[in-house]
Parts: sequence; structure tokens; C-alpha cells
Amino acid sequence: MDMSTEVRLDCPIAQALDVIGEKWSLLILRDLFRKGAQRFQELEVSVIGIAPSTLSARLKSLEASDVIATRLYEAHPPRLEYYLTHKGKALGPILKALRDWGEHFG
Amino acid sequence: MDMSTEVRLDCPIAQALDVIGEKWSLLILRDLFRKGAQRFQELEVSVIGIAPSTLSARLKSLEASDVIATRLYEAHPPRLEYYLTHKGKALGPILKALRDWGEHFG
Repeated sequence: MDMSTEVRLDCPIAQALDVIGEKWSLLILRDLFRKGAQRFQELEVSVIGIAPSTLSARLKSLEASDVIATRLYEAHPPRLEYYLTHKGKALGPILKALRDWGEHFG
Repeated sequence: MDMSTEVRLDCPIAQALDVIGEKWSLLILRDLFRKGAQRFQELEVSVIGIAPSTLSARLKSLEASDVIATRLYEAHPPRLEYYLTHKGKALGPILKALRDWGEHFG
């Protein structure tokens, strides 16, 4: 058993952070909550300061964790858009708690 | 105005993540919530897998953000211990939301 497995088994906070414990992931999720399904190019604009390679890596990781998923967007040519899954929508209270704290202390 | 300033002014979630948007910071805060004031050596053991240099850097950053503070621990020789400030204790709902999500989906 490696260390990361040990932490994961031990603590639900560490489990949650294994999925979303990183600034860019949370800012991507923030924008999917605010705006609904988004295309890569839209996220690149709304997540101010993110590098395209970071956006691509975080989207892959969030998708592998079943927090977001992709579907074809109705367009010519069709493009992928990213949306929150049930598991991703359940992150809402974490973002709300972050917003409340940021409003008081940021 | 650089990009990080722009994000900070724009959004309380981004402001909060500027302070705590990183896995190790949140795991350090978790242990200060669970166990009260802790010495460096205690955190090094309880935050499984953290490198001493990372622990040191994250403690400095959390202290600079007024989320934690240090005081002399009653001992011979006296040592520093780290504790949550008022601003740090106000992070409780974020950790609770992370725990709830991790328990359901981790």
C-alpha cells in the first residue's frame, strides 16, 4: 500500500482533495456551475490566467474522476462541451462555502 | 493590473483559493481543526506523505494569509506551535463540505 492509498482510505477530506484539491480544478468547476455546459474555448476565456495545457490536463483529470463528462454540442462542425455530472453537482456546497469565506475574508 | 489581481477582485471563490486552494494546505488545516495547536514535528507525522520543505512553505504561506499563527509552546526548550486564527477557524464549513462530499463520493 503506497502513501496516497493510505491517506485515501483514512480520511474523506483527503479523498475529496485527491479529486479537486487544486486551484485550477475548482475554478473550472466554478464556471461550469455558473454557466452550465462549456466548450474548451469558453473555459479558456472565463478561467482567467489558465494555460491551455493546464486546462486540458485538469479537464482530463476531472473527467477521469467522474466529476465532469463530455457530450457533442449541436453545431457545424460538432464540438465537445463539458458538463457537471451528478457527482460534480454535489460539489456545490464546497464552492458555496469557499465563496462565503472569500466574501468575508478575501 | 496583472492577471492574478484581476481574478482576486473579480471573484470571492478565487480569493479563497488564493489562500487555501492547494491539497497540502487544506490537509494541514484539517489537522489543526482536529487536534488543536500542533508543533511542526506533529504535523510532519499527521499529514501523511508531506515533505518537510512543503510543510514549511505551506505553514509560512498560511501564516502570511493570517489563517494560522504561531506561539511559544510551554516546554524546555520552548518550541513554536501553530494554531488557527479567527480567520482560519472560519474555514470550518469548507472542510465540513469537503468531508461530506468525500464520504459520499470518495
